[in-house]
Amino acid sequence: MTTPEAREEAVLEAVRERRERVNGAIPEELPIKRPERLYEASRYLLDAGGKRLRPTVLLATAEALADVDPLGTDYRQFPTLEGDEIDVMNAAISVEVIQSFTLIHDDIMDDDDLRRGVPAVHKEYDLETAILAGDTLYSKAFEIMLESGADADRMVDALDVLATTCTKICEGQSLDVTFEERDGVTPEEYLEMVEQKTAVLYAASACLPAILMGANDETVEALYGYGLDIGRAFQIQDDVLDLTVPSEKLGKQRGSDLVENKQTLITVHAREQGLDIVDLVDTNDVDAVTEAEIDDALAELEAVGSIDYANDKARELVEQGKDRLEVLPDNEARELLCQLADYLIERGY
Amino acid sequence: MTTPEAREEAVLEAVRERRERVNGAIPEELPIKRPERLYEASRYLLDAGGKRLRPTVLLATAEALADVDPLGTDYRQFPTLEGDEIDVMNAAISVEVIQSFTLIHDDIMDDDDLRRGVPAVHKEYDLETAILAGDTLYSKAFEIMLESGADADRMVDALDVLATTCTKICEGQSLDVTFEERDGVTPEEYLEMVEQKTAVLYAASACLPAILMGANDETVEALYGYGLDIGRAFQIQDDVLDLTVPSEKLGKQRGSDLVENKQTLITVHAREQGLDIVDLVDTNDVDAVTEAEIDDALAELEAVGSIDYANDKARELVEQGKDRLEVLPDNEARELLCQLADYLIERGY
Repeated sequence: MTTPEAREEAVLEAVRERRERVNGAIPEELPIKRPERLYEASRYLLDAGGKRLRPTVLLATAEALADVDPLGTDYRQFPTLEGDEIDVMNAAISVEVIQSFTLIHDDIMDDDDLRRGVPAVHKEYDLETAILAGDTLYSKAFEIMLESGADADRMVDALDVLATTCTKICEGQSLDVTFEERDGVTPEEYLEMVEQKTAVLYAASACLPAILMGANDETVEALYGYGLDIGRAFQIQDDVLDLTVPSEKLGKQRGSDLVENKQTLITVHAREQGLDIVDLVDTNDVDAVTEAEIDDALAELEAVGSIDYANDKARELVEQGKDRLEVLPDNEARELLCQLADYLIERGY
Repeated sequence: MTTPEAREEAVLEAVRERRERVNGAIPEELPIKRPERLYEASRYLLDAGGKRLRPTVLLATAEALADVDPLGTDYRQFPTLEGDEIDVMNAAISVEVIQSFTLIHDDIMDDDDLRRGVPAVHKEYDLETAILAGDTLYSKAFEIMLESGADADRMVDALDVLATTCTKICEGQSLDVTFEERDGVTPEEYLEMVEQKTAVLYAASACLPAILMGANDETVEALYGYGLDIGRAFQIQDDVLDLTVPSEKLGKQRGSDLVENKQTLITVHAREQGLDIVDLVDTNDVDAVTEAEIDDALAELEAVGSIDYANDKARELVEQGKDRLEVLPDNEARELLCQLADYLIERGY
């Protein structure tokens, strides 16, 4: 019987080991070349850090499918189910590059100053360069995927997933913007938005190795569903953490979502219970709010059951996601995918 | 013996006929759906007009390769060289969608107010929506190409061309920005920038039908070269027209490139001849410049041979491009591709 702390440490170690390999591969797949300023800006956020959760999901899924020892097989010459080899690291880099492109453009849209502890790309460089860096990463993600060396039929399916995933992320981001100007968003609508904006890239990460390695449709669909489930759970947990983690640990003001009247699963649920969400916190200024005000708001949200509702929903999605992994061979990498799912909602920040 | 006017009218009629079909297909491939505001913004510039030169090049190349009567064959069920059928209209829409995405993002970067006689997307909507509309068109271009129904091997090659083309457009745009802050750009460097920023999408338009229809490598490469040649000639002619066409016909102040110290093939050549380019026009304000000042500047540029140099270069590129069309069967569509090349440098605006 392992403690939760030991389980979390084991997951973090598994993520760390894959992150190191991913970090080593990024400069290989996205070298700084002419025009240097463009490629430096494109690499800036990728080099600034990040947990690499999506590439980790992708690599671990590949390991589970191939039924090989975790980290014991060269990702660059990875066995498929059809007897040939692919470069599964390229697929992992591709989804991380997509993630990075969306962050760069999102930061412009939200005019956020900081990301991963460093200035956002449009602050470190300028608006022009940031738009262009995002656009460059966008096509580079396709180029990098194209160099994974999969059979043409499987490659076409993989590129289809990549393209439709990008479209859905844009649709989700657009819905999110619409929600900010709208009252009466339901939990179902909120979860649909989160599915498109956040979860589809987890879904792509989980199903892409299955597609590239020649798994059957049932497996591809189950893994896509796993990604959608854990991706939504991840976002819900983010919303909970914004309220419950001390500001100094969070790296920004606790409760900033509430102050800025950002809709979350918690607030849309609370509003359905009759709570006046807009006036939960008096100020709209993150710098002016007090910890006591956030505590009061949190107590009100707890009283109408909205925190429990969000936690229950996240737990339900994680359990559903884990069940879908039954399509995979029973091995250590599958166990890691289960632990990753748990970690996404048990993590402290 | 036809007159230049009759030749131009014949080309414009051929472009017009294809444009109508392209315009009819755009709403089919890019319907307005939820989230409506996002898709309306994505369609805004496409619906505002445009000559559709790139789709016309693509469709005419397909007709020449298949050796069919111009406009006599259903683009949606178009014969390949391998006996199957593809939807070549999808490929044509795909390149136009890429073009539209780059214009939306370019207008943000340059903070241009107008495009095709209507407000730029970030002016009609807002910055957020314009970035997102461009990003949506980007992935939609891949989705639309993926639905052209080509064999997987050919499709992978086509998507590779699409992705590398987008990367080069970003690199070219980045070089263009760098040039604005740099002295001593050479004509060779300028032409390299134009190749990446503008000509590669013409090159993609010309070679994509060859790839999708199963033509051999020699044909694909020759058509790619044709596109690079006419695309560069197109941009050089644009630079000449900015100086020589009356403001009312141009739809903006004649000589605005000079006033804004934008580098063109004409100015980089003139500087190499020892002309002081920066002070050719005293003002930096497009609204303050007089026609007489532009005339004086033009006379100086003519005196050092820079206008002739640009015209000669454009003509040379067009002749080189036309020679490359020898790989195609001798038919009416190939003749149209020759006329299109001539049109690009003979057009009045």
